[in-house]
Amino acid sequence: MAGWVTWPDGRTRIGYGADYNPDQWTPDVWRDDVALMREAGVTIVSLGIFAWARLEPSDGVYDFELFDEVMDLLREAGIAVCLATATASPPAWLVAQHPDLLPVDADGRVLGFGGRQSWCPSSRTFTSYAVRLVRALALHYRDHPALVAWHVSNEYGCHNSRCYCDTSAVEFRRWLRQRYGDVDRLNQAWATDFWSQRYGSFDEVSPPRSAPTYCNPTQQLDFARFCSDELLAQYVAEREVLREITPRVPVTTNLMAGLGTKNMDYLRWGPELDFVSNDHYLAEWHPEPQIELAFAADLTRGCSRGEPWMLMEQSTSAVNWGLVNRPKVPGEMWRNTLAQVARGADSVSYFQWRASAGGAEKFHSAMVPHAGRDSRVFREVVAQGRRLELLAELAGSRSRNRVAVLFDYPSWWAVEQDSHPRQDYSYRTVMMAWYEPLWRANCGVDVVGTDADLAPYDVIVVPGLYLTTDATAAAVAAAAERGATVLVTWFSGIVDEHDRVRLGGYPGAFRDLVGVRVEEFVPLRAGTKVRLSDGSVVERWAEDLAAVDAEVVLSYVGGPLDGKPAVTVRDVGAGKAWYVSAEVAPATASAIVGRVLSEAGIGAVAESTGEVEVVRRGSCIVAVNHSSAPASVRVSGRDLLSGRAVGPDVPVPAGETFVVRV
Amino acid sequence: MAGWVTWPDGRTRIGYGADYNPDQWTPDVWRDDVALMREAGVTIVSLGIFAWARLEPSDGVYDFELFDEVMDLLREAGIAVCLATATASPPAWLVAQHPDLLPVDADGRVLGFGGRQSWCPSSRTFTSYAVRLVRALALHYRDHPALVAWHVSNEYGCHNSRCYCDTSAVEFRRWLRQRYGDVDRLNQAWATDFWSQRYGSFDEVSPPRSAPTYCNPTQQLDFARFCSDELLAQYVAEREVLREITPRVPVTTNLMAGLGTKNMDYLRWGPELDFVSNDHYLAEWHPEPQIELAFAADLTRGCSRGEPWMLMEQSTSAVNWGLVNRPKVPGEMWRNTLAQVARGADSVSYFQWRASAGGAEKFHSAMVPHAGRDSRVFREVVAQGRRLELLAELAGSRSRNRVAVLFDYPSWWAVEQDSHPRQDYSYRTVMMAWYEPLWRANCGVDVVGTDADLAPYDVIVVPGLYLTTDATAAAVAAAAERGATVLVTWFSGIVDEHDRVRLGGYPGAFRDLVGVRVEEFVPLRAGTKVRLSDGSVVERWAEDLAAVDAEVVLSYVGGPLDGKPAVTVRDVGAGKAWYVSAEVAPATASAIVGRVLSEAGIGAVAESTGEVEVVRRGSCIVAVNHSSAPASVRVSGRDLLSGRAVGPDVPVPAGETFVVRV
Amino acid sequence: MAGWVTWPDGRTRIGYGADYNPDQWTPDVWRDDVALMREAGVTIVSLGIFAWARLEPSDGVYDFELFDEVMDLLREAGIAVCLATATASPPAWLVAQHPDLLPVDADGRVLGFGGRQSWCPSSRTFTSYAVRLVRALALHYRDHPALVAWHVSNEYGCHNSRCYCDTSAVEFRRWLRQRYGDVDRLNQAWATDFWSQRYGSFDEVSPPRSAPTYCNPTQQLDFARFCSDELLAQYVAEREVLREITPRVPVTTNLMAGLGTKNMDYLRWGPELDFVSNDHYLAEWHPEPQIELAFAADLTRGCSRGEPWMLMEQSTSAVNWGLVNRPKVPGEMWRNTLAQVARGADSVSYFQWRASAGGAEKFHSAMVPHAGRDSRVFREVVAQGRRLELLAELAGSRSRNRVAVLFDYPSWWAVEQDSHPRQDYSYRTVMMAWYEPLWRANCGVDVVGTDADLAPYDVIVVPGLYLTTDATAAAVAAAAERGATVLVTWFSGIVDEHDRVRLGGYPGAFRDLVGVRVEEFVPLRAGTKVRLSDGSVVERWAEDLAAVDAEVVLSYVGGPLDGKPAVTVRDVGAGKAWYVSAEVAPATASAIVGRVLSEAGIGAVAESTGEVEVVRRGSCIVAVNHSSAPASVRVSGRDLLSGRAVGPDVPVPAGETFVVRV
Repeated sequence: MAGWVTWPDGRTRIGYGADYNPDQWTPDVWRDDVALMREAGVTIVSLGIFAWARLEPSDGVYDFELFDEVMDLLREAGIAVCLATATASPPAWLVAQHPDLLPVDADGRVLGFGGRQSWCPSSRTFTSYAVRLVRALALHYRDHPALVAWHVSNEYGCHNSRCYCDTSAVEFRRWLRQRYGDVDRLNQAWATDFWSQRYGSFDEVSPPRSAPTYCNPTQQLDFARFCSDELLAQYVAEREVLREITPRVPVTTNLMAGLGTKNMDYLRWGPELDFVSNDHYLAEWHPEPQIELAFAADLTRGCSRGEPWMLMEQSTSAVNWGLVNRPKVPGEMWRNTLAQVARGADSVSYFQWRASAGGAEKFHSAMVPHAGRDSRVFREVVAQGRRLELLAELAGSRSRNRVAVLFDYPSWWAVEQDSHPRQDYSYRTVMMAWYEPLWRANCGVDVVGTDADLAPYDVIVVPGLYLTTDATAAAVAAAAERGATVLVTWFSGIVDEHDRVRLGGYPGAFRDLVGVRVEEFVPLRAGTKVRLSDGSVVERWAEDLAAVDAEVVLSYVGGPLDGKPAVTVRDVGAGKAWYVSAEVAPATASAIVGRVLSEAGIGAVAESTGEVEVVRRGSCIVAVNHSSAPASVRVSGRDLLSGRAVGPDVPVPAGETFVVRV
Repeated sequence: MAGWVTWPDGRTRIGYGADYNPDQWTPDVWRDDVALMREAGVTIVSLGIFAWARLEPSDGVYDFELFDEVMDLLREAGIAVCLATATASPPAWLVAQHPDLLPVDADGRVLGFGGRQSWCPSSRTFTSYAVRLVRALALHYRDHPALVAWHVSNEYGCHNSRCYCDTSAVEFRRWLRQRYGDVDRLNQAWATDFWSQRYGSFDEVSPPRSAPTYCNPTQQLDFARFCSDELLAQYVAEREVLREITPRVPVTTNLMAGLGTKNMDYLRWGPELDFVSNDHYLAEWHPEPQIELAFAADLTRGCSRGEPWMLMEQSTSAVNWGLVNRPKVPGEMWRNTLAQVARGADSVSYFQWRASAGGAEKFHSAMVPHAGRDSRVFREVVAQGRRLELLAELAGSRSRNRVAVLFDYPSWWAVEQDSHPRQDYSYRTVMMAWYEPLWRANCGVDVVGTDADLAPYDVIVVPGLYLTTDATAAAVAAAAERGATVLVTWFSGIVDEHDRVRLGGYPGAFRDLVGVRVEEFVPLRAGTKVRLSDGSVVERWAEDLAAVDAEVVLSYVGGPLDGKPAVTVRDVGAGKAWYVSAEVAPATASAIVGRVLSEAGIGAVAESTGEVEVVRRGSCIVAVNHSSAPASVRVSGRDLLSGRAVGPDVPVPAGETFVVRV
Repeated sequence: MAGWVTWPDGRTRIGYGADYNPDQWTPDVWRDDVALMREAGVTIVSLGIFAWARLEPSDGVYDFELFDEVMDLLREAGIAVCLATATASPPAWLVAQHPDLLPVDADGRVLGFGGRQSWCPSSRTFTSYAVRLVRALALHYRDHPALVAWHVSNEYGCHNSRCYCDTSAVEFRRWLRQRYGDVDRLNQAWATDFWSQRYGSFDEVSPPRSAPTYCNPTQQLDFARFCSDELLAQYVAEREVLREITPRVPVTTNLMAGLGTKNMDYLRWGPELDFVSNDHYLAEWHPEPQIELAFAADLTRGCSRGEPWMLMEQSTSAVNWGLVNRPKVPGEMWRNTLAQVARGADSVSYFQWRASAGGAEKFHSAMVPHAGRDSRVFREVVAQGRRLELLAELAGSRSRNRVAVLFDYPSWWAVEQDSHPRQDYSYRTVMMAWYEPLWRANCGVDVVGTDADLAPYDVIVVPGLYLTTDATAAAVAAAAERGATVLVTWFSGIVDEHDRVRLGGYPGAFRDLVGVRVEEFVPLRAGTKVRLSDGSVVERWAEDLAAVDAEVVLSYVGGPLDGKPAVTVRDVGAGKAWYVSAEVAPATASAIVGRVLSEAGIGAVAESTGEVEVVRRGSCIVAVNHSSAPASVRVSGRDLLSGRAVGPDVPVPAGETFVVRV
């Protein structure tokens, strides 16, 4: 794909825009909006995401007048429209008529109207109404010149990803029949002989509703798979209508890929989207949220199989849903945007264009804040528009990275279930522990699914891949055989796709590859520590293992594990396989990653001094200094932002950025 | 009102008594009770609050025998009776017959019988049974000489203030129809175009039951208003019967005004009561609970529009419902009582007369504790009775204060909703932050509603009035124009009565008055601090603002806000308008308040040295030393408690009190 | 009882084994299992606990084939079988057919299938199906030579101890009718005049379902009694069938006696079991879990009225249900086992034989771990088997202790209810505070119910016995009269069996015995401290009391309690009665216990130096050194483990043990 949409003017650009909800405002405001959009350099808006109640004010009665006028205004201003199918939230009349489409939680609690996404992902009633609206909308706007893409629904599963209602139960049984065919295969997969759970027929199976104690873990895992599939099926149902009516208009839905959203298997969703789009909000749980942002962008590119993608939503400043919602500091918005563009975003948009006066998100920042045009935020919005225009040549270009991090949603679901060696296990913490040193190394990383082609990679990091299929284990082993360095971390390879333990010693699926045999996990309670031979301290997790066929790199020192291996490496064919058995300190993780990269001959995309993020996209080197100290990067070429030739050592003052075409 | 009840003996006094529940005891105990009441100087009891099941043992069958005997015993002892209508908790037979009157929570959970207040405030079934009992009771006791007042129900809404059942839904729709007339006005007020929530008719609207995510904020706010109104309507229904049958007997219900009860808009309830009565328990969440006590008393007087009122409940010592329920220390009971009397209480009573042997509150202290007459608590009860007799002349007198604090229940409801710049916002913390320096200044404060007449006040403090109507904004501005000093603090004036943001820059409703324009809120996460130009530190909240037309008193120092104004003042007509944009440290708040009072020429009601609370009521100066160090007050006159002439500097030893008639 | 089962080979031994679940494995694994069991010295297994779905795959259709084969394999290997009735968890088809047997929580939430124990203890439907299976099973295996005992259900009430469904309501009313006969006696007992709760008939009473506020405390307490009784009735129903068919095979069910399980009154269950069996898992909430283990074992012996008992379940290493599940360190498994045997266990078993590959407890350790035979855990399992064989002579022997600790489940239920002086009261903390110094004194302790015969005891400790019946109070007083020393601690004797306060001053039931009168409780909030005259500090609880007829041992110093008694002792007949009014520091508790024991002439069962647990069982002295420092014990005789004559001072190295026949 040379770009994700065909612009009305035929030019190439990095798109710039917002969710636009004119239905919240009066027509005079629309005109002001368009004027301000032009001032800001907005080139695309996502229109009418929550407009179902306006578009279909009562059952089967459509009213396009408002959007006709707005579409025309936008067209006149040369602003492209990614038109929403408006099905994200059903209108009040539909819910009142069909209360059975309301979602129900595991406790049997019905989740009513009044928020958003009050619909059960398995409701065929919902599907039929949604598809009917989409057909009407597509027929009405199929020829509108502003229409460049379709935005189906919105943030599928943000609040309704798990429904336990009777309809969901029926569909879950259908899904299980498809997966297992015979109920005895389900019994085998679910290990139902434990606790007398053996089923005589699929009809006896239910969603994992609240029970006296832990529900069957594979029941939970399969339900998670089912729920993701049901939401995806809703997307596909709408997409099929759109493909029929507007075959040349690409269709997407905005994912929420990153470490804050767990319930949808976006790596399986990506191929169903004509182009991938993503929403990203800063991960305030992390002290350096730019690292999670980078991870999310690398993962989004993983969902997109390396293709450029669209950043559909981010925030100009504060959000409204955190405990304490800080505004962004001056310059932060631009640094966030550039870091996304550097990782493959061909368009950056915001929720939302104009801050709402009412409703649940009125305190969410926007491109036009409550204070209006005369504000720091709007001034930065305008400045950003100017800068993005200068980056047009980046659009459509790709990255070529030699390092892969394996990421897997089903493993995430499985590893954070109950009844584990430690219940407070956090996949995202483990993921960040290994992504962070790679990020600091500026080496270029792809975050990919377990079914990705591993051929391009010289280093493959496998952080905490608890659930590992035979196919994944084989692919990783094959990569090592042909020369890659594989780094497997603790509590990986433990179970198969049915969450059944691989017997004979951990890390099951990787035991032969890494050449160690773990007898017991040693989760460490708060205050308990274990020392390693490099002098570092391990706090939450260790393992009791033997190096069967591996070189010991680091050992445990003192305590019951004294002298046992902690970190090992094994030569495998033309490659190597590392194993890290403990939740090591950041410096140790960094040292291990440093050695792995250096032995693989992988360096930074450009050398630098000081703390600075450096990314390569296409023929450009992008630098972002998130710190409060100056840095510099060794690169020569033309800085697209300043228009000046620079190099060979380009200073990057605190908070500043550059984009140098090499 | 020259006093809140007409005493049987025609004398004036500060009433003294308790909730009296003889139905929990055998007749021999009643006789002991009356003897002990006389020993203690008890003059009034609130009788039979939870006696419905005794008075009406089965549907429509009444049994007054027990209370006939007790009423006569009390009359013989000269003890007046504030007779309960006994409708606080329905009897088991009524709930068994009409389970539809049980309250239902937002999750659809039915709240059953077994505690108290197991009834839905919108249940007309409940109303009809309650009103029938009240009629029978009033007809039976209308001429009893002990009857001096009616006590309707008890602590309305303490546990059942929010019911989400289908009956409540029906009544909520009725209430909304009355409020908005047309559903499009509701759509406009509720901003339903956000998240596709537009309603086609009132019939589609529900209470804000559990939903997939945040319910519409104005739906939540209107539901809070509705719930308060429904409870008040229950009171009015009973009152109307009583007015018909005993037109000369005043009717009240005990409020729980203070910073611990949020769900009833007592400032709107007050005018419906023939006299205001209040329950108050020490706020153990505050390190100096006497300050919240003072606030609650000043607020009760606000509900009473300045009239004397009755303290219906407090505790002699420990309560039973806190996490850790400490007993009061010797003398503390009296200090609490006197602080209430000084602020307008014409009667002080306790829950309850005799500690229960069984039931949920058996570990709640009482005037007669489990240990019986031979106990510290009962000895203090007797001593207090003697002292209150000496204060008879205070009864009916009023306070004249020049300082007002604006307090508003709907704003409290709105500001603590979800999806705000910080979710842990606490109205009571903000309120106490500004009330506390006023309390320490001993200047005399009225806590009043936003519709109060502001004419008497020279200083008007507006702490965190998030929701501000046009009328309130105009009244505050007018007060400044005519010479008052107005002090508006952060996150005030943000929304209108529909919780819709006032656009163009915060603090919306007060922007022109205070002459500043706030662009963004800067909530500070734990560990983040901002310094002010007085060297103080701000921890939880700051704002990013410009002084458009105001003098800068304090500025931010360092960080992204460096040099911006933090505290400003503006000359307005004959007065001034201050704005405080940050949650300033106590010393800074104290300095600001000190300057405001001093510039307004307002001092303490009497000068003092050391830490001592000084209050003026009528022609008396009341001093209460809560500290462990001696203090003294500059005042001359006769101490009603000691009977001695004192002055000009009256010592107040640690823990001691005086009441000097000037 | 000379032993709890008759072994197939007629020998006496300490049994050794596990829960065995061959239904989770294929037949080839069964053969490996039996070989490994023989290697480990396993002599008994508890078979088929969750096999209902296998044994009765559809309604009324039985399939014994799998267990026939396994029973024969075990018999051939000489391994005895404690055969499960398999009724712990109903199969899916039964729940699907009778969803009314699902438990319902206090909120009305149905707890569905998918975990275990998804059945209502009052369901007669469940009973009839369970009893039918038991009959079929007993008829089938009645003559099998491997069968030595019946294991009914499993861990009754672990998850389903409280059901609030309509069936439970019906049975609760029946139970109440039996207990009270007349509803007015219930009204009296429950103090229903409080909060208008008086009932006109039993039909109006419900379980204490969620209510607007605290439910009636006696309703809660009686419901707790009812729930324990209902589970016991389920046990009895199965036992009766077994007694009819296999009258010579003893019947048990595994209790979970200890400080982690509260809802079943095991002291009343014990007499219904042919032999008592117990499950015990380390109390990781305690820094020295071996002390709680000792308490649990002493309590199990209390349930067993002094008879030997079976330890049915413990873990070889980590469990799966804690927050952080650490493995046991080398040697810890053996120390745990020996401490149980020393306290009367005639058999020690584990959950489970072979670690599951799937299901909710796959990460629970087992005798054969995931790593298999070649593992530290299995090697220790084998070594333990050898050691237990050496202890055969201990089987059937008893302990004779002179110290009793009174323990009571209804008091536990009552004291931890809501609306108390402090809500975070923890019976187990209080119990451990007084058990711990006794444990350290190595003096031999029986933990007994309040109805136990106190005649054997010279010291009787009564920790926090909030609910005290007249009979218990009289028995304790009589024991003191005849010469015992009684030690009563704070918040004891407060209420009668109906949770009604004993008036006139605390500690009600013990007031005359200990000669003090408490006026008020003084719970201390975090950060508040009171000093005692021994210089120690009291932190959470004190009382305001007078010594009416008692010698003051320690007094309060400073604060409002200054000079008042804190710890007292009174001469009573030939004995003494101590009262401790405060939650004293461990050193003070230890000093008090030390003085009490020494004045009663009670020493350690054997003198020791260093930290070492010493227990006497029959004619043997058992020593367990849990510490990391060496200790020694003064004892002479033959060490059964080493076979050597030892003494007079036997060293016990860190982590080591001995069993010396004196």
